[in-house]
Amino acid sequence: MTERIVVVGFGPVAARLIDELLPAVRSGIAHLTVIGEESEAAYNRVLVADLGVGRTTQAALALADPAALVADGVDVRLGVRVRRVDRARQQVVLTDGSTPGYDRLVFATGSRPVIPNLTGLNPDPAAPVLPPGVTALRDLRDASVLHSAVAGGKRVVVLGGGVLGLETALAAAEEGATVTVVHNGPHPLGRNIDRGGGAVLAASLRNCGVRVAGNARSTGVEHNAPDGGFSALLLDDGSAIDGDLLVLSCGVRPRTELAQGCGLSTAAGILVDHKLRAHHEPHIFAIGDCAEVRCPDPECVECRTARGPSGLVGPGWRQAEWLAEYLTLLASGAPAEAEALPALAAELPGVIVLKARGMNMAVAGDVSAEPWDEEALTAGAVNGRARLQIAQWADPEHGRHVKMITRAGVLEGLVAVGMPRTSAELVQLFERGAELPADRSLLLRLDGPDQLASPGAADPARTVCRCAGVSGTAIAAAASDGCSTVPEVSAATRAGTGCGGCHDDIKGIIEAHFQGAVA
Amino acid sequence: MTERIVVVGFGPVAARLIDELLPAVRSGIAHLTVIGEESEAAYNRVLVADLGVGRTTQAALALADPAALVADGVDVRLGVRVRRVDRARQQVVLTDGSTPGYDRLVFATGSRPVIPNLTGLNPDPAAPVLPPGVTALRDLRDASVLHSAVAGGKRVVVLGGGVLGLETALAAAEEGATVTVVHNGPHPLGRNIDRGGGAVLAASLRNCGVRVAGNARSTGVEHNAPDGGFSALLLDDGSAIDGDLLVLSCGVRPRTELAQGCGLSTAAGILVDHKLRAHHEPHIFAIGDCAEVRCPDPECVECRTARGPSGLVGPGWRQAEWLAEYLTLLASGAPAEAEALPALAAELPGVIVLKARGMNMAVAGDVSAEPWDEEALTAGAVNGRARLQIAQWADPEHGRHVKMITRAGVLEGLVAVGMPRTSAELVQLFERGAELPADRSLLLRLDGPDQLASPGAADPARTVCRCAGVSGTAIAAAASDGCSTVPEVSAATRAGTGCGGCHDDIKGIIEAHFQGAVA
Repeated sequence: MTERIVVVGFGPVAARLIDELLPAVRSGIAHLTVIGEESEAAYNRVLVADLGVGRTTQAALALADPAALVADGVDVRLGVRVRRVDRARQQVVLTDGSTPGYDRLVFATGSRPVIPNLTGLNPDPAAPVLPPGVTALRDLRDASVLHSAVAGGKRVVVLGGGVLGLETALAAAEEGATVTVVHNGPHPLGRNIDRGGGAVLAASLRNCGVRVAGNARSTGVEHNAPDGGFSALLLDDGSAIDGDLLVLSCGVRPRTELAQGCGLSTAAGILVDHKLRAHHEPHIFAIGDCAEVRCPDPECVECRTARGPSGLVGPGWRQAEWLAEYLTLLASGAPAEAEALPALAAELPGVIVLKARGMNMAVAGDVSAEPWDEEALTAGAVNGRARLQIAQWADPEHGRHVKMITRAGVLEGLVAVGMPRTSAELVQLFERGAELPADRSLLLRLDGPDQLASPGAADPARTVCRCAGVSGTAIAAAASDGCSTVPEVSAATRAGTGCGGCHDDIKGIIEAHFQGAVA
Repeated sequence: MTERIVVVGFGPVAARLIDELLPAVRSGIAHLTVIGEESEAAYNRVLVADLGVGRTTQAALALADPAALVADGVDVRLGVRVRRVDRARQQVVLTDGSTPGYDRLVFATGSRPVIPNLTGLNPDPAAPVLPPGVTALRDLRDASVLHSAVAGGKRVVVLGGGVLGLETALAAAEEGATVTVVHNGPHPLGRNIDRGGGAVLAASLRNCGVRVAGNARSTGVEHNAPDGGFSALLLDDGSAIDGDLLVLSCGVRPRTELAQGCGLSTAAGILVDHKLRAHHEPHIFAIGDCAEVRCPDPECVECRTARGPSGLVGPGWRQAEWLAEYLTLLASGAPAEAEALPALAAELPGVIVLKARGMNMAVAGDVSAEPWDEEALTAGAVNGRARLQIAQWADPEHGRHVKMITRAGVLEGLVAVGMPRTSAELVQLFERGAELPADRSLLLRLDGPDQLASPGAADPARTVCRCAGVSGTAIAAAASDGCSTVPEVSAATRAGTGCGGCHDDIKGIIEAHFQGAVA
């Protein structure tokens, strides 16, 4: 018997699930239907801003080839939406009137931008119709809107000081636009970064040519452009920030309304257990941005401290891989083996990385405490658990700020601004859970004038692409096999297909390989 | 004609003045009278605590040899006090009934300890009679009281978290006493040190075996010892700190009552102009702890920002040297040359240094601002003057804290705890007014595992003894001349006769010399 699997949504996480399910499809044990509301198949949404500023091409963003999938037997349906899910009949009702049935249904509906409540914006979150000159920079159409603004040297106002807003602002400024970031709170990145790091970050942004308007509360948008489009963002102090394009970057919200409509439990996202199953519904799963792992067991320690969906592509891809294996085992008629699959490891708190010409920043974990903040640092130190400790280097004059928050010598949080090598090393130590050197100031020397070699950089087995989880060894092997460009390595290993932050590292490994080959 | 010079007081600063006046006395152009109320001639008061814990001898503290002075013709009067000064008759009236006349009168009356207003202490500041078991650790008798307590392994309570109190506490703890420092405010060294440095300092003190009771307000002393002496310090929260000896270390106050009694202007100290002359009285001078340089000119920029007496011996010694030259010129009948003497250079803010086994700290300047304290850092940046900048390393887990406060790259303040080499280098850079390396983190490496050589330590001309202002070159020359111990170098160069903080450095120079001589 063939198991009918329907995937709702065709973003990067759905694409990975489909990829991993292809062997089951080809062998005939699974029939796979994927439903995407955009006319394009999955593409790398993280790089939409890069596309918008003209740094990459639409082709380079593609993560799936619908024609190849169809050739493999996948039922690919693009430009169509799911109207509702009929759990009683185990079928989905599409806007084109068709009603594909399922044995397993996977929600991979992702998230949608938060549209702030501003005078002059349509506040319907389910179906935002943004006025001309306003974009949330989510899909390929948004990228082309940004592209005309940047190419025309226009004034871009970015509302929101999160990492995506800052990336967009940096890229647009670097490509010639006049950019202002408007955020509330004293510094960008809000609660993700500490006060000192935030101040240095804001100064670095200004050095990169990005104007930063902090402590700003926006109240509305003005539409006085000749075409009736956006002309200014209005603030609550009566001032206005003039511009030609407003980019809304106020976070995303999981798309759960379809799941809610068919009676599934949701919180921030669709609630799933450690096997990614919807609560009390073994036929339905959710992965990626729309899924919130929180099992029904009130005693589960992991879920008690779990936060909502991470919004990062890496954890979604790991869920897709796990679920593909699980569904393949079920389709193979091996339910015992499926149940015996080890559950996905809990994800580390995400690392936020920001890179641009003259700008480097990494933040991870809770970094708000200060080194002499006894109360905050000893709060969790009960039952013999070590207290938190902080080592911090602050040199705002030179745009440098490093904070290492450790428990028993192992990083639980970090901030590094303006020190790229220190930052890379700290991120690796954080992800490996490795103990820091007792003399923490050693880490600062990676960015010193003599550029001490990083012990981590020397480790070929380190994770280079964190989104796809690809090691330096695997990338070097791809280079040995003849890959001589980043896209070739990406095609061969998937390294570099996520946020793109590792492209320079991949380049470095390729170069080192070919230098070695020549020498 | 012989000029009659009378010096009131016979402490370290008076001793230096007398030393420098000896040539004029020997040549007969000056007649010198010195009046000391103690039965001993000048001795190094800074080391009274060291004497008290048995680390040095009374002989090693001596700064003057009365018999030699008498042989040189100086009129040395010990154990006698000045009752009053008769400015009309130009004479001083002594408690023994004698009335030596003067042409020039020099106040070198120093300071007296502040006796806090506590129940059970005599609150008369002019003539404190402290109960048994309570000492202000000011003179040789006090040292012997501390000595018996330390030798007996008794419990010593130090009231006051200033540098002298901390030095006493560290020394007494190291020599075997049980020591508690009681201070108000969140950390020791009050406003001299910043919050982070203060927290690390307090932890370092505890590591050195000193108990630290912060945020404490003392209200009284309890006398329940068998001999009716001190038994506990009472705090305002109703608690008490038990002990056998209470050392009061609550600061000092210039002794000005004699000057006030004869109508001279005083503020914190006796007010003198840049030639150390009492206001409107060219026959009277004041130097050292009792003197406050603040000229009558309301337009004088230097005096507008001047603080009171420093309480340090180095500036007093430089005043004594300057005044000796001035008085010698006057006595030589060369008033024009005397008036043409360049005035004393303004003293830098003092450097506070604390050294003990397992403890190293240096603080200088105003260090309260934090790196992201925009308001405090830009406050003085007017008329093109650069703003303040701060670089800071905080690693409280490892007892390390460094703060560098710079203007245009030059230190205006510093804190260094737990990093002896960094600290020594910063103090030198501070005193030389030299520009820091742009990568401030280089300075941390002096205390790194590979102990990068300090550029300043390599400079033989650097000032080694800051109290007496003696260079490494001069100390090396003394070693070449045969001095092979610190006391020999001190006798030959005066290096090491002040706070004693440079004794290890002098030892190092002697050793380097003899190693070189052997090799």
